[in-house]
Amino acid sequence: MVKMVVIPLFFIAALLICSPSSHAADFCVGDLKGPTSPAGYSCKDPAKVTVDDFVYSGLAAVGNTTNLIKASVAPAFAAQFPGLNGLGISVARLDLAPGGVIPFHTHPAGNEVLTVLQGVICAGFVDTANKVYLKTLKKGDIMIFPTGLLHFQVNGGGSLATAIVSFSSSQPGLQILDYVLFANDLPSLLVEKTTFLDDAQVKKLKGALGGTN
Amino acid sequence: MVKMVVIPLFFIAALLICSPSSHAADFCVGDLKGPTSPAGYSCKDPAKVTVDDFVYSGLAAVGNTTNLIKASVAPAFAAQFPGLNGLGISVARLDLAPGGVIPFHTHPAGNEVLTVLQGVICAGFVDTANKVYLKTLKKGDIMIFPTGLLHFQVNGGGSLATAIVSFSSSQPGLQILDYVLFANDLPSLLVEKTTFLDDAQVKKLKGALGGTN
Amino acid sequence: MVKMVVIPLFFIAALLICSPSSHAADFCVGDLKGPTSPAGYSCKDPAKVTVDDFVYSGLAAVGNTTNLIKASVAPAFAAQFPGLNGLGISVARLDLAPGGVIPFHTHPAGNEVLTVLQGVICAGFVDTANKVYLKTLKKGDIMIFPTGLLHFQVNGGGSLATAIVSFSSSQPGLQILDYVLFANDLPSLLVEKTTFLDDAQVKKLKGALGGTN
Amino acid sequence: MVKMVVIPLFFIAALLICSPSSHAADFCVGDLKGPTSPAGYSCKDPAKVTVDDFVYSGLAAVGNTTNLIKASVAPAFAAQFPGLNGLGISVARLDLAPGGVIPFHTHPAGNEVLTVLQGVICAGFVDTANKVYLKTLKKGDIMIFPTGLLHFQVNGGGSLATAIVSFSSSQPGLQILDYVLFANDLPSLLVEKTTFLDDAQVKKLKGALGGTN
Amino acid sequence: MVKMVVIPLFFIAALLICSPSSHAADFCVGDLKGPTSPAGYSCKDPAKVTVDDFVYSGLAAVGNTTNLIKASVAPAFAAQFPGLNGLGISVARLDLAPGGVIPFHTHPAGNEVLTVLQGVICAGFVDTANKVYLKTLKKGDIMIFPTGLLHFQVNGGGSLATAIVSFSSSQPGLQILDYVLFANDLPSLLVEKTTFLDDAQVKKLKGALGGTN
Amino acid sequence: MVKMVVIPLFFIAALLICSPSSHAADFCVGDLKGPTSPAGYSCKDPAKVTVDDFVYSGLAAVGNTTNLIKASVAPAFAAQFPGLNGLGISVARLDLAPGGVIPFHTHPAGNEVLTVLQGVICAGFVDTANKVYLKTLKKGDIMIFPTGLLHFQVNGGGSLATAIVSFSSSQPGLQILDYVLFANDLPSLLVEKTTFLDDAQVKKLKGALGGTN
Repeated sequence: MVKMVVIPLFFIAALLICSPSSHAADFCVGDLKGPTSPAGYSCKDPAKVTVDDFVYSGLAAVGNTTNLIKASVAPAFAAQFPGLNGLGISVARLDLAPGGVIPFHTHPAGNEVLTVLQGVICAGFVDTANKVYLKTLKKGDIMIFPTGLLHFQVNGGGSLATAIVSFSSSQPGLQILDYVLFANDLPSLLVEKTTFLDDAQVKKLKGALGGTN
Repeated sequence: MVKMVVIPLFFIAALLICSPSSHAADFCVGDLKGPTSPAGYSCKDPAKVTVDDFVYSGLAAVGNTTNLIKASVAPAFAAQFPGLNGLGISVARLDLAPGGVIPFHTHPAGNEVLTVLQGVICAGFVDTANKVYLKTLKKGDIMIFPTGLLHFQVNGGGSLATAIVSFSSSQPGLQILDYVLFANDLPSLLVEKTTFLDDAQVKKLKGALGGTN
Repeated sequence: MVKMVVIPLFFIAALLICSPSSHAADFCVGDLKGPTSPAGYSCKDPAKVTVDDFVYSGLAAVGNTTNLIKASVAPAFAAQFPGLNGLGISVARLDLAPGGVIPFHTHPAGNEVLTVLQGVICAGFVDTANKVYLKTLKKGDIMIFPTGLLHFQVNGGGSLATAIVSFSSSQPGLQILDYVLFANDLPSLLVEKTTFLDDAQVKKLKGALGGTN
Repeated sequence: MVKMVVIPLFFIAALLICSPSSHAADFCVGDLKGPTSPAGYSCKDPAKVTVDDFVYSGLAAVGNTTNLIKASVAPAFAAQFPGLNGLGISVARLDLAPGGVIPFHTHPAGNEVLTVLQGVICAGFVDTANKVYLKTLKKGDIMIFPTGLLHFQVNGGGSLATAIVSFSSSQPGLQILDYVLFANDLPSLLVEKTTFLDDAQVKKLKGALGGTN
Repeated sequence: MVKMVVIPLFFIAALLICSPSSHAADFCVGDLKGPTSPAGYSCKDPAKVTVDDFVYSGLAAVGNTTNLIKASVAPAFAAQFPGLNGLGISVARLDLAPGGVIPFHTHPAGNEVLTVLQGVICAGFVDTANKVYLKTLKKGDIMIFPTGLLHFQVNGGGSLATAIVSFSSSQPGLQILDYVLFANDLPSLLVEKTTFLDDAQVKKLKGALGGTN
Repeated sequence: MVKMVVIPLFFIAALLICSPSSHAADFCVGDLKGPTSPAGYSCKDPAKVTVDDFVYSGLAAVGNTTNLIKASVAPAFAAQFPGLNGLGISVARLDLAPGGVIPFHTHPAGNEVLTVLQGVICAGFVDTANKVYLKTLKKGDIMIFPTGLLHFQVNGGGSLATAIVSFSSSQPGLQILDYVLFANDLPSLLVEKTTFLDDAQVKKLKGALGGTN
């Protein structure tokens, strides 16, 4: 059969077109041991990449909500799921037990989209004109939180609430307001001067969250 | 009380710093009627934006899977959910009835991350070195599909499978291989010449999918 | 002279190469009345652009610091200085009277570089690992504040301190923590639940800053 | 036949997935009459876009080289070929008669790649460390000129030389050094002070190129 | 002479302004042996970069078209021409003997612009609304193929056709549909399920192209 | 007290959320010894980053203006101030003694914003339509110079003039026209052919600036 005869030539073309080194640009699975750059982690050798680099099961289970906030945030950012490195996207799982709260926080480098998988979540953010956006979300609802704006999520029902959140960055970051103010060594005096909070309030929360100074 | 007395001055500062026009950059809710640019839709007047512009409930219900592919894709891209405009992120919901399949397709402009919410999904993609990445995913598993690469999802179990997918673009696009080849007016002769498929095969699928020529 | 003779031909080439319509891409002076897009304001007709579109004098004078924070922030973002539109850069002027403070705030969409022009400024930021970066800056010192991270500036001396700050965006935004928490209609109960602040503290500052609910 | 029977259902899915409004993001053919943004021209209504918006024949003919520089530059930037709008790429054609020269110039917003189609071209650029990169190129040779760096092309043989050049921007711009210095109303005194050129030299070239002041 | 006397001082300024380390940002010639990042290859030491890093002659000769597709694609991407690394542009050469075809394919990460250098090429692409864009191109014609969309080129005349193509990425990638479906170990059953092709058709082409399973 | 009792659990959550490796994305302080990429320098180990990596005092003093141009440019680009690496912003200080001039130059990769701190500066740029933008700036005035366009600054008064300039890139580059033409080994004949300058003029300035050939 004629087609069978010319196949070897076709393969020569194939080798020319699709040399192994050219597929590095399809993805850049993070090599957490290599040098990093402003664009992210170094790329794992493509020859050693397997499908398992693109699959992550770390968000399958309910997070531990036996803590002060009665909530859990499990990130699948590039640091946890290196396959996301450089792809401009990441995800995380939120679990809020009854009474649970993800306190005021920001993601310095990524827009967030939250999808409620179960339960009821009361969520809100504030824009730079100081306008408040507040909504009670039920299963299947999706809500946007623009990058860098302070926002929160609170369990708005009587049962476990779970959400999957996506970010427009593989390393969106997470900065929790209470940690910034009360859980490090930033002097109380400076906290008070830059927030107008009372000294007693600052010291009470510094005490509770392990902050010093 | 001293603090009360100086408040009006503080508000003057507030007005100087946070003028309404400056918060337009926090987001750009799409105005689907206005002119579009390479960066997306025009922005809705921020003064008319409400929290409902950031909330979408269109993915809450199971999609209709009573069709040939026994599957449904419901996008929440900027065209459906204008709050996503310009944010570099979007989502969609996949439902696959038993035997359902999302046929080979690409998203020309966005990396995809899929999270299985229920059921079992067999998914795969092929990179530009022609290497196959294939995995059977269960509830809670997450899988990456890099931008522009051909990929598919197939129900891998006996019950409804549902996934939420996120993209690193507010308009990732969706190009289904079978539609390209068999559901338009691209002449059969050209399809055959550019795919090496047999004439009978092309005409059979053109017939089934409504393609002409 | 030979060169003079051939000039008309040279001008023909000039007209072909440098047609007026081709210089639109050099800049995009913002037309604050036109439609906006995720990329910024519409462009003013290049034919009507003059050098004055690229010059701004609004930061020349000391700001009014007779207010609660004894400080002033004067932005020259694209909204105030439309020549910056789309250029990925903007500036602002800070004036801090003795005892003045720019309270904890973030810029959701831009890295900041501060240059001290006079006086002494104590500045700090906290990263997402909750590490504090604190420094007393004198005239000529430059300090970086990465995008989206909470930071502050306090007058660290006995005289007026002035700084010029630059941002890696023409619309970096400005979100002041106290305004978010205490100067809008976000219910006190939600503020307390999402910050762990005491009810009395929240109500005191809501009262001082004009917040409701 | 079973497959024929279920087709209508398949089409329902097709309509849901591929609604006309969703393909706007595939491209953004420039509407030169609409508002512009920092991202480029407004998009032509996708429903009115045809294949002719993606095809350009303006570079097919040899340019007119009967001028002082014995050369011609024909751009196919977004202003001339609106299909390129927002795509981050453009092309141009260079023709250099014997003795022809494209004088020192820059492209302020795009890396350049030149491919010689016929003849011999001597080309060069200078980097910001003031190192000179100089090469004589023959048919089929490709050379890179990084964005913003001063460079030139000179016919290096005795016959017409032609090149196709590509840019990493749909509006790379073109600034010709001699035009900047000698073909506008920039005062001779300022030209001399900012270039160290002699007054006689500046006035001679201002005269030749139509400059004033 | 006065000017000669002050030159050494001028050079001191020169050294301050243009230190060798500052020109690294002009370009980043790829070091194919170093670590890679999402932004591309590591940069070759600028001190060792010469003009030859910016010149490539690998596309000068007609490609070998003695193969099944009677065509050749010769890429000058960053992997072949490291000077392009990070510059957002690359090129390739297409040769199509009479009857030659570049089968349906995509470039996952780059818009394409094709310029016909000789012969006649019939080219087409399909957008995500499934609209077909088809054109017969002659010498000098330019055609755009937006990123990620399936497209093809076929020799439309009786003689060799050659084109130079440019991409808006230094690593645009190339995914050939037939290779994805028939030239790897993707199980036939999955190919059939995700394409609706008949088993006999899949097995015939798997046989011809060396696919397994 | 109840809150004290549950703190340990809260800290467990804190450790999960804010692991040290996740804050690498807040910034990427340049490691000038590591490999570079198109995105900039490698990142210094975040664990070793201190506030001093974000503070720079190199622009505090007046530059040495005892040179031919009676001016000084002191850059704080990523090469000098590695904390700026990857942040898309940098600064520099200009000092112009009476009669001083920053000769015609470009920044190949960054828009510039200049703020006059003292004295009078006459500044100008030319766009790609060859239109001249000229302005005399006094203390506090701000002026924009778009990326890649030739521009200059001249002391417009009788005393020292100082400006702080910002750029929309951490490595904007600096290319001084006179250096390109007269201070390297580019052959005089090529300079003349590509600028139309007279041989005597070229040789005079080559002599003054140390150029050869």
